[in-house]
Amino acid sequence: MSADRTLAMVGLGRMGASMLRRLARAGLPVCGFDVAEAARAGVAGEPGVAVGTSLAATIAMLRAPRAVWVMLPAGAITTQTIDAVAGLLSPGDVILDGGNADYHDTLRQAASLEARGLHFIDVGVSGGVWGLAEGYGLMFGGPKSAVTPLLPVFQALAPAADRGWVHCGPTGSGHYTKMVHNGIEYGAMQAYAEGFALLHAKREFALDVAAIAEAWRHGTVVRSWLLDLAAGALRQDPLMDQVAPLVADSGEGRWTVREGLDLGVPLPVTAAALNVRLASQGRGDYGARFLARLRNAFGGHAVGRADRPGS
Amino acid sequence: MSADRTLAMVGLGRMGASMLRRLARAGLPVCGFDVAEAARAGVAGEPGVAVGTSLAATIAMLRAPRAVWVMLPAGAITTQTIDAVAGLLSPGDVILDGGNADYHDTLRQAASLEARGLHFIDVGVSGGVWGLAEGYGLMFGGPKSAVTPLLPVFQALAPAADRGWVHCGPTGSGHYTKMVHNGIEYGAMQAYAEGFALLHAKREFALDVAAIAEAWRHGTVVRSWLLDLAAGALRQDPLMDQVAPLVADSGEGRWTVREGLDLGVPLPVTAAALNVRLASQGRGDYGARFLARLRNAFGGHAVGRADRPGS
Repeated sequence: MSADRTLAMVGLGRMGASMLRRLARAGLPVCGFDVAEAARAGVAGEPGVAVGTSLAATIAMLRAPRAVWVMLPAGAITTQTIDAVAGLLSPGDVILDGGNADYHDTLRQAASLEARGLHFIDVGVSGGVWGLAEGYGLMFGGPKSAVTPLLPVFQALAPAADRGWVHCGPTGSGHYTKMVHNGIEYGAMQAYAEGFALLHAKREFALDVAAIAEAWRHGTVVRSWLLDLAAGALRQDPLMDQVAPLVADSGEGRWTVREGLDLGVPLPVTAAALNVRLASQGRGDYGARFLARLRNAFGGHAVGRADRPGS
Repeated sequence: MSADRTLAMVGLGRMGASMLRRLARAGLPVCGFDVAEAARAGVAGEPGVAVGTSLAATIAMLRAPRAVWVMLPAGAITTQTIDAVAGLLSPGDVILDGGNADYHDTLRQAASLEARGLHFIDVGVSGGVWGLAEGYGLMFGGPKSAVTPLLPVFQALAPAADRGWVHCGPTGSGHYTKMVHNGIEYGAMQAYAEGFALLHAKREFALDVAAIAEAWRHGTVVRSWLLDLAAGALRQDPLMDQVAPLVADSGEGRWTVREGLDLGVPLPVTAAALNVRLASQGRGDYGARFLARLRNAFGGHAVGRADRPGS
């Protein structure tokens, strides 16, 4: 097989596979690899997509300088894969990391790769499951010499060639900017959650929260893509009473709040939104028990039993 | 003059005048009045707009049942104007209040007007200076019998006849819903403010905050109309160092937080966003002085002088 592919995508999960498809549909010759055979089979045979049977075989399909985009969950799996990829590359080649890494890890990784003559570009990717159709918001960091040859890749992934992507600055700045993006997401989502909770709680007005969400999408100050999603969710299920009141957090919120502490920038809304998620996970329960005990101690107020909170 | 006008707008300030224009451009025959001659002159002579020289003369232009929309700042001026309008109307006529009133005041006003046989519709209006061109988001409350004949008015003001407006429920629910809308606005705005503050503070990356804002408008989770405005503002003035760091609050944030207390609904993000504004107004200064004094008392830490805070 000739070595003429523009980019290799390593990690063909929901995000990686969709991004590979979007690149191929834009006419870029791409290849991909995943350790899971099912993931490889999911994109094999699509026009413009070549799938390798191993990491080495996949990288062998690339033209030089080679560009390998690692699209895996942040953490050990990404770090190990980047190390494996680096072992198969030569000086001047480029590794891109599209996971939501902590930018401190990105900076360490970049230093180690640069010592081996490899370039490292960190890419924050937004858009989730809608990206294949609408394009991905991209924010990336890295040396200009490594970024410039890859602009056609970024432009094909973005909503349009001239928008939705930004070269933020040096390596690390892409994941930093994505971290901040996700921090904003925490605060904005919680702002909507509180508003709809107030609408829902005002029983005497019997408000149709789905109709209000739909109306707000047009002409108001709070219109947004998040509100579009909220209106869709409320149309299906305005009461939401079968949904467990538990919200996961996957790191970026904590990193954002920590960064605020490191830089001495107050982030009261981001921190409050993060705290709501932590409390929803039961992480505030010991504190609540402590308060119940204290109220009992000074005022004789009843303390409920854990299996019967209202008792 | 024949009494054939559909609606009278009382208060021809920036909002009232633009709304009157939008109605006239939609082909609805309307009339308007303002105590300020300059405001009357601002719309006089526009196609489809009749301007009265007094409140009574303006209301005399209306066909029955008469509909008078009061578009003035919430508070005494609105209450007094509604009282004056009510004195010129007959049972079955309708008064609309488009100011951002506290919904408790709206409920009291409605009870008093209903006792006189008048209907009262409270309308939350969103869209600000962009409404004339793009249409206004409208959320209104009132009895269906009074609302239905006015649907053409709401449909003409809204971004389109079939969207951007919602009949929330009984009188009071329009201003309630607008209050919640504005509460969400507080939290969402602050979420963006914190994110851009973190981007700005990360000096070693020398991030182009305007370019990032522009890129985020396309394909990302945080895209919104507020972000569109932020991108425009940052393009003009990314440093913002000539802008006083002082944010006014005009009531709705405080009302929203108070409503959360009344209903027992936690609103940590809305409250935090409100607190940021209050602190920016210097209302936290006594507390900060108190903390500085306490640190001095237990640790001997230096206390700055008010005219030289860093001393």
